[in-house]
Amino acid sequence: MSSKKNAIAPTRSENFSEWYQAVIKAADLAEHSAVRGCMIIKPWGYAIWELIQKNLDKMIKDTGHDNVYFPMLIPLSYLQKEAAHVDGFAKECAVVTHYRLETNDAGELVPAPDAKLSEPYIIRPTSETVIGTAMASWINSYKDLPVKINQWANVMRWEMRTRLFLRTSEFLWQEGHTAHATEEEAMSETRMMLDVYETLAQDYLAIPVIKGEKTPSERFPGAVNTYCIEAMMQDGKALQAGTSHFLGQNFSSAYSIAFADKNQQRSFAWTTSWGVSTRLIGALILTHSDDDGLVLPPVVAPVQVILIPVAMNADDLSSVMEYCEVLVKDLRAQKYHDDFVRVSIDKTDERAGTKFWNAVKKGIPLRVEIGMREINADLLSISRRDNPAKEKKQMKRADVVSDVAVLLNEIQDALLKRATAFKAQHTFHVNTLDELEKAFGDDEAHCCGFATAYFDFAVENNPATEEKLKKMKLTIRCMPLDRDATTGHCIFSDNVVNTKVIFARAY
Amino acid sequence: MSSKKNAIAPTRSENFSEWYQAVIKAADLAEHSAVRGCMIIKPWGYAIWELIQKNLDKMIKDTGHDNVYFPMLIPLSYLQKEAAHVDGFAKECAVVTHYRLETNDAGELVPAPDAKLSEPYIIRPTSETVIGTAMASWINSYKDLPVKINQWANVMRWEMRTRLFLRTSEFLWQEGHTAHATEEEAMSETRMMLDVYETLAQDYLAIPVIKGEKTPSERFPGAVNTYCIEAMMQDGKALQAGTSHFLGQNFSSAYSIAFADKNQQRSFAWTTSWGVSTRLIGALILTHSDDDGLVLPPVVAPVQVILIPVAMNADDLSSVMEYCEVLVKDLRAQKYHDDFVRVSIDKTDERAGTKFWNAVKKGIPLRVEIGMREINADLLSISRRDNPAKEKKQMKRADVVSDVAVLLNEIQDALLKRATAFKAQHTFHVNTLDELEKAFGDDEAHCCGFATAYFDFAVENNPATEEKLKKMKLTIRCMPLDRDATTGHCIFSDNVVNTKVIFARAY
Repeated sequence: MSSKKNAIAPTRSENFSEWYQAVIKAADLAEHSAVRGCMIIKPWGYAIWELIQKNLDKMIKDTGHDNVYFPMLIPLSYLQKEAAHVDGFAKECAVVTHYRLETNDAGELVPAPDAKLSEPYIIRPTSETVIGTAMASWINSYKDLPVKINQWANVMRWEMRTRLFLRTSEFLWQEGHTAHATEEEAMSETRMMLDVYETLAQDYLAIPVIKGEKTPSERFPGAVNTYCIEAMMQDGKALQAGTSHFLGQNFSSAYSIAFADKNQQRSFAWTTSWGVSTRLIGALILTHSDDDGLVLPPVVAPVQVILIPVAMNADDLSSVMEYCEVLVKDLRAQKYHDDFVRVSIDKTDERAGTKFWNAVKKGIPLRVEIGMREINADLLSISRRDNPAKEKKQMKRADVVSDVAVLLNEIQDALLKRATAFKAQHTFHVNTLDELEKAFGDDEAHCCGFATAYFDFAVENNPATEEKLKKMKLTIRCMPLDRDATTGHCIFSDNVVNTKVIFARAY
Repeated sequence: MSSKKNAIAPTRSENFSEWYQAVIKAADLAEHSAVRGCMIIKPWGYAIWELIQKNLDKMIKDTGHDNVYFPMLIPLSYLQKEAAHVDGFAKECAVVTHYRLETNDAGELVPAPDAKLSEPYIIRPTSETVIGTAMASWINSYKDLPVKINQWANVMRWEMRTRLFLRTSEFLWQEGHTAHATEEEAMSETRMMLDVYETLAQDYLAIPVIKGEKTPSERFPGAVNTYCIEAMMQDGKALQAGTSHFLGQNFSSAYSIAFADKNQQRSFAWTTSWGVSTRLIGALILTHSDDDGLVLPPVVAPVQVILIPVAMNADDLSSVMEYCEVLVKDLRAQKYHDDFVRVSIDKTDERAGTKFWNAVKKGIPLRVEIGMREINADLLSISRRDNPAKEKKQMKRADVVSDVAVLLNEIQDALLKRATAFKAQHTFHVNTLDELEKAFGDDEAHCCGFATAYFDFAVENNPATEEKLKKMKLTIRCMPLDRDATTGHCIFSDNVVNTKVIFARAY
C-alpha cells in the first residue's frame, strides 16, 4: 500500500495494469460492452477522440488528401487477391453469412436458412482490398494520379485478449490510401504521413516517439515496408502508435491499379496506406496519467480550465456563481492552439472537495477554485494537473485571464518534457545477448524500457532467435530511422552489421 | 429530346430517375460498389456530408447532448427484448455467424466451421437495444437523469432495391438517444429535436419541410409516437428527411432502464431516439438540382466560390493566376454563415469552357471568370448557379470581395424560396377519394405532389384502405403538426374526424 492517499487505487507501482483500468473508470472514458471485445466510448473519452480527429483531419487535408467513405463489408473474393494480406487477416475477422433472421419452431431467433449469402462478407479489418478495387476503376491515365484519400471509420479484428483502447475487436481509426505514378512519390508520401503522425504524437499528444521501420516479419500483411512511430509507456513497455505502409506494386498488381503514362505505356501504380486509431487514447493514458488518475495534455483536453465554485451558504453561492459566469466568458475569449480556450464551471451539487477531485480524475489541465475569500482578495487559487494535486498558486483574476494560454502551454510543454526525459532514462544500448537478458530478467512488470542493439535481419526468423525473444517476452519494435553509419556485432548472430533495432516488451 | 443543350442528360422531364443518377455521376458524388446495396461516397459527396455533420453536430451539442460511440454488433438476445422492434428489423439485417476464415480442401476461403459463434450478432440497423442495455446500468437514481447522448455511425439494413443516397444497405447517420424522468420532458425532447431537424433542413439545406406525426402503422418499431419532417422533391414525391421518436416506456421496460425518485420510488425512465442520415444528400439533389446538374445551397457547398482563370497564352495565364491567388486570399478573409468563405481556383489544364461546365455540374454557387480583359477593365464576370448557366453579371473586383457573403446569402434564400413556392404549388386538398384518384391517376411519373385530406385513423389498416392506396401507389406521409381545429369527412370512411393527413407518392 502507498503511504500517501491517492484519488484512485491501486497506484502504478502497486499494479500497473489495474491502475490503467482504474484511470479509465475514474475519468469515465469508456467501458466494456456485452459484445465480445468491443467497448463503449463514453462522452469524456469520445470528446478526446474528437479533438484528436479534428487536429489530425486538418493535417490530412492540408497535405492534400480528401475524405471519402467506403463500404464496411468486404467480399471474400476481394480479400483473396493479395496472398499475404489474406494470410494476415483471415484469422481474425467477423464473417457475415446471412441477411435475415427468423423465428424457428422452438421460438428462437436464428439466421434464416434461406437467406444465406452465396458469397459471405467480412467486416473490414482494413480497406486496402475494397479501395484498391475502386482505384482500379478510377485510374486509367497518369492524369488520374495521384489519388490521395482518407476515411474515418470503424474496423473489426477479432481479438482474443482485449483491453480498453489498447486492443479491442472493433475500433475507430482513420485509414489513408494513396496511389502514385512513381516509386519515389509513393515512398515520399509514406514518409510524409509518418512525419504527420510524429507531429500529432509529439506536438498534440505530448508523446515523444521514435520513428522507425518494422523488421520484415512485423510488416503489414502485403506491405513492402512498414514504418511506425513507437512510444514508451510509463511501465517501460513500447506502444506502436501509428503506422505508414509503402505497399510498392503488391496491391496495384493484385487489384489491377494500372495507368498509361505520357507515352501510352501501361504500368502498375505505387500505393501506400497509413492509419492511427483510438489506441492513441490508450497511449495518452499510459504516458501521462498518475496515481490520481488521468492527466490530459491541454491540446486534447475537452475542458482545459475548470472553475470550481466554493460556497458556505446560498448567498455566497449566488455571488460566486455570478462571478464565475463572467470569468468563464473572459476566459473563453482567449485563444490557445488556434482555438478558443475550453472552460467549464462545475455546477454540480457536490462538496468543493469532491468537485476538486473529480476535476483531478478527469485530467483537466487547470483548476481554479473560487470562493468569497478569493473574490474579495482578488487572488484565485490555481492548480495545475501536472503538479501534485494539492500544490496551489494564488493569481489575480486579471492575470488568470491574460496568462491562461501561457499556463496551458507550460503544461503541454512540461508533459512532453517529462515523457521525453523518462524515455531517455529508460533507453540503453546492449552489446551482447547476455546484457539484454540481464536487463529484462524474468519479471514482466520490471520497467526497463528500450534496449538498442545491432541486429542482423537474416536471423530474425531463426527458431533460436524467436525462442530467445519469446522467453524474454521481447519483440523487435523497429529499426530507428534516425541512425548513424556505425557498424557492430549482431547480438544473435555475431555478424557485423550496420542495422540497429529496438528491443522492448510491448502492448 | 430537349431543344436546349444541357450539361447532363437526360433532363428531368425526359426521365427523372435517370436524371438523378446523371446528376450524381456528373458531380462525382458517389458510386455503387460491388458490395450489395452499398455505396462509395466520393470526395465531393463526402465533403457535403461533413458540412451537414458539422452544422448539425453543433446544434446537437448546443442542445445539451454528448457524443459517444457504441459497438456496431448487437447480440440477438438484445434484439429480442422488444417485440415490435425485432419484428421491424429482423427481416433486413446482416448476420455475423463466424469469427475466422480458413481455406478448405478445395482451396476456397470459407468461414471456419470451428469458429462459429454460439450467439450470432447482427450489424446494428439502429442502436436502441445496445444503448438501452448500457443506460440500464448507468441509471439508478433521478440524479443520473437525463442522459442525452448521440453517435455518428454507420448502420446496415439489408435493402432489396437500392438507390445512391436515398436507400442503401449501409448508410451513415447520427442517432440520438435520451432518457428522462418524466413523460413531459421526454416528449419535449422529442419535439425539440424535430425542431432542430426542421432548422437543419430549412436554414442550412434550403429544403422546406412539413413537421408531422406518423400514423400508427408507419411508426418506428417500438415507438409510441414517431414525428418526422417530410420534404417534397421536384417530381412531387415525398421524402422523409428525419425522424424523432417518443419511445414512452416501451424500451425502458424492455431493457430495465429504471430509477429511484426523490422518495425512493422506482419507475421506468421515458426515452427518445432521433436520426438523420446521408439520405439528406439525396434530398438536396432532388430538391435543388436542374438539367445542368447539381445545385448546392451555399451553406453546405464544399466550395462556395470558384475562380476560373481564362488565358490565351502562357504569359496571360501567369498574370491571371497571380491575380487569382491574391483575390482568393481576399475572398477567404470574408465571412458567411459563421465561417470563412470557401474559395477555390480551378488550376486544371482544361479549356475555359470545360472549367465553366465542371463548376456548373458540381453545383458551386458562384463562378467568377477571370481573363486579361476582365482584369484590365476591372470587371469580373460572375455567374450564379441558381440562375441559367450562361447568365452573367459584371462586377468590380472590390465589389465581388465586399459583396460575396451577400451574394451567397441571396442564393441560399433564392433556393429556399423556389422550393417553398414549388411545394405550395403542388399541395392541394381533396374532399373525396374520387378527387384523390383523379389527382394522381395511374402515371407514377405524373407530378402532383401532396394531397391533404381528412382521415380516420381507425380505417388505416382496413384491407380496403390499404388496397386503394397501393393501387394509387400512395402512402400516408404524416399528420401535419401545424393544423387547425376544423373537422371534415374521412375520404375513406366518411366519418367526421378532426385529423388531416398528407397523401403522396414517396421515396
